[in-house]
Amino acid sequence: MTTKILLNCDMGESFGNWKMGDDESVMEWVDMANIACGFHASDPHVMSKTIKLAQHYHTQIGAHPGYQDLVGFGRRSIPHTMDEISELVCYQVGALQALCRYHHASVGYVKPHGALYNDMMANIDVFNAVAQAVAEFNIPLMILSSSDNQQYLDIADDHDLPLLFEAFADRAYLNNGQLSPRTQKGSVYVNQDDIYNQVMQIINYGSVTTLEGERLPIEADTICVHGDNPQSIALIRKIRQDLNAFN
Amino acid sequence: MTTKILLNCDMGESFGNWKMGDDESVMEWVDMANIACGFHASDPHVMSKTIKLAQHYHTQIGAHPGYQDLVGFGRRSIPHTMDEISELVCYQVGALQALCRYHHASVGYVKPHGALYNDMMANIDVFNAVAQAVAEFNIPLMILSSSDNQQYLDIADDHDLPLLFEAFADRAYLNNGQLSPRTQKGSVYVNQDDIYNQVMQIINYGSVTTLEGERLPIEADTICVHGDNPQSIALIRKIRQDLNAFN
Amino acid sequence: MTTKILLNCDMGESFGNWKMGDDESVMEWVDMANIACGFHASDPHVMSKTIKLAQHYHTQIGAHPGYQDLVGFGRRSIPHTMDEISELVCYQVGALQALCRYHHASVGYVKPHGALYNDMMANIDVFNAVAQAVAEFNIPLMILSSSDNQQYLDIADDHDLPLLFEAFADRAYLNNGQLSPRTQKGSVYVNQDDIYNQVMQIINYGSVTTLEGERLPIEADTICVHGDNPQSIALIRKIRQDLNAFN
Amino acid sequence: MTTKILLNCDMGESFGNWKMGDDESVMEWVDMANIACGFHASDPHVMSKTIKLAQHYHTQIGAHPGYQDLVGFGRRSIPHTMDEISELVCYQVGALQALCRYHHASVGYVKPHGALYNDMMANIDVFNAVAQAVAEFNIPLMILSSSDNQQYLDIADDHDLPLLFEAFADRAYLNNGQLSPRTQKGSVYVNQDDIYNQVMQIINYGSVTTLEGERLPIEADTICVHGDNPQSIALIRKIRQDLNAFN
Repeated sequence: MTTKILLNCDMGESFGNWKMGDDESVMEWVDMANIACGFHASDPHVMSKTIKLAQHYHTQIGAHPGYQDLVGFGRRSIPHTMDEISELVCYQVGALQALCRYHHASVGYVKPHGALYNDMMANIDVFNAVAQAVAEFNIPLMILSSSDNQQYLDIADDHDLPLLFEAFADRAYLNNGQLSPRTQKGSVYVNQDDIYNQVMQIINYGSVTTLEGERLPIEADTICVHGDNPQSIALIRKIRQDLNAFN
Repeated sequence: MTTKILLNCDMGESFGNWKMGDDESVMEWVDMANIACGFHASDPHVMSKTIKLAQHYHTQIGAHPGYQDLVGFGRRSIPHTMDEISELVCYQVGALQALCRYHHASVGYVKPHGALYNDMMANIDVFNAVAQAVAEFNIPLMILSSSDNQQYLDIADDHDLPLLFEAFADRAYLNNGQLSPRTQKGSVYVNQDDIYNQVMQIINYGSVTTLEGERLPIEADTICVHGDNPQSIALIRKIRQDLNAFN
Repeated sequence: MTTKILLNCDMGESFGNWKMGDDESVMEWVDMANIACGFHASDPHVMSKTIKLAQHYHTQIGAHPGYQDLVGFGRRSIPHTMDEISELVCYQVGALQALCRYHHASVGYVKPHGALYNDMMANIDVFNAVAQAVAEFNIPLMILSSSDNQQYLDIADDHDLPLLFEAFADRAYLNNGQLSPRTQKGSVYVNQDDIYNQVMQIINYGSVTTLEGERLPIEADTICVHGDNPQSIALIRKIRQDLNAFN
Repeated sequence: MTTKILLNCDMGESFGNWKMGDDESVMEWVDMANIACGFHASDPHVMSKTIKLAQHYHTQIGAHPGYQDLVGFGRRSIPHTMDEISELVCYQVGALQALCRYHHASVGYVKPHGALYNDMMANIDVFNAVAQAVAEFNIPLMILSSSDNQQYLDIADDHDLPLLFEAFADRAYLNNGQLSPRTQKGSVYVNQDDIYNQVMQIINYGSVTTLEGERLPIEADTICVHGDNPQSIALIRKIRQDLNAFN
């Protein structure tokens, strides 16, 4: 293993009086905090608190824009024109950027959330609309690493947009390089050992073992981890310690 | 009259399928477009369209942030902490700024909307919270010109923040330099001649005639006009032509 | 022509300060007012005013529930579970019913709005979920009349739910009995004569002439008209006068 | 002690993916569940689940309407006309009632939430507007028991509206019979013994000991308890067992 692999984690997903996740415990152990921007979760005050927490632990801040759908947590695919997609990404990244500047921090990358992320990977027009918006910010766009990375790199090149590729710690892959859909049994790992093993395989061998049992090479700049319960936070801490030993 | 007085007007107050105002007809005749930012009115698509319209007519773009209250159109004073005030201003100005950058335009100033504007003028802590947020953008804050301008200039100086003072074309003033409250009879001019005369008096003599009948000096960088019906649009056009003759 | 055909029209689609439609002018000329319930349009105050207006003209009140999507005006199909569909229909019809009771009026029927209406006609599970909710209110459900009315009658029977079938005044039909999709050219009539002729053919002959030029029998308890501009309001008035002459 | 005192508790305050409270653990031990109605918390699906949970434990269902303010959790006083107050209460109670009917349950009473509750107790016009709305449902309105109960009873009589008076388990009272404001130190009991003692004093002696140290008689049909953490749930269970021993 020669390249440093970074851990990214969704953060700032509370809203008003509703708390989600345990950002205070997780922030220390990850490299990149994907901060929700008020459309599917968060509000200006939660965003502000999360920015300050990331600053405290020197965690890189990323914008995590989603569809405007609080009750559905941005997980429902809502029809939009491509212009609307670009506009909602601009709006949310700009809002987070201004709050970062207010706290003397900055937004380092963009990772779309939930249904917007899925739509971006499933529909090249949506990817284009997102890429066009993110390109204006001169920061990279994080997308799912798959067997088709080159087609995304080509489009991103047209926008002069750097890409970051991510792998998932707790999601099963298929032989075709796609994530196994959540609705399919076994597609989300809940056993901490399974998650740990997938992370270690990505870091050490640049591959995952698919649901069908094959070894699939996977390029990853970063691995997405989740820290929503004490068990998963303990695991992130363990992965972090292993990574530190490597680097 | 030595200084050029600019006309500013609230714009981009449509929301989704609901249309408000006739921006297409007004934009040409005003100097400054106060564009709503999605909290009390507008959405990313309406903002985008309004930015493009302002660009077409070389109208300066201002951010018009308000309380998050669509159903109340930002006209209800909603309790906030001072941090929350700064944060909601940052969020909205940043969102508009990003959409402007996307269209190769820029935000030239900030003018708070409705209840936020009133609260800012009624409570010096709210003014401070707004000023602190706007100062990060290195653009001026537009506030109500009154007999107390110096106290606001002093605070703004602490934030290194330029101020723009505005007078109202269609609102009656009191001897104490305040606007007569909307609830009081005669405080909103509906007769086009009354509005025209107040504008001309501000431009030519730097004064208004108060509801009590006295002549009150008023310093104004800009005059706020409204263009929500054919009559008022015709009046704006007439004022513009008079201003052009002067300048 | 033996049966009386009623005119239904979407009403109460304003929201906060945003006005939509000209309910004051249209209410007098239609038999049934489909009142929006706060999810895709309207708010408790607008609902209240619309109920009073309907009472004044003795117009029957129907609930017009939609997806919770103000910015999209309920026209975007948002994924829901079937339980959620039943629940959002219950919620909105119950809310309108309570406001009606408060004004000594009542809800006479339910007609889903926009994407919920389309999803209900396109997916029998959605129809079932809507039917199950409406059945609790002991009032009829209004759906699109097509060549397949019997399948809907059978399901409705299982719920002990009466149905009302509607035809559209300004939409072109296809030979298969479906509405021609809005995206297809010629599928929405804008010429007032075309609309008038389609209404008269439905009333007098129980048929429409399809886009392909054939004569298609259509059963209709009611015809949906739109009153969003002076021309269309004049047409509704003319249709009303013709209907009065018949009845 | 001759009358049975009932325990009431706020329930169904989750929203979309955000969970609040531990309704599953508390529902069994209280008599009355105040269910949020979608304006300050909850959504149709959460309401539906909470209704079914209440049915399972034979807990009485009450409507808990609030201001439309998710991000502020209905705790911010938002200016409304009196008509709007009546309308938003009607809307929310009607929505819950319809969902109850859908599940073969019913709404037994109404208790306003947060800022609406406080405004109702602080402003007799707001109380009147709430009372007028609730009276249409033929169910009681729950309000704060104070030294002024008679004035509320008189107004309620005009509306033919029964009242329920509640005392608070964890709030300190003042000699004037009002709750000590939350902002004042010592006004919210956090020590479980203090809460238990206040509840027992209300049940056994019909009084509370004020913050100033005096014994204040208090009439209560019901006591409001909170079950948001394991400690408080354990306390509710203990109170329930004591109450069962009494009754």
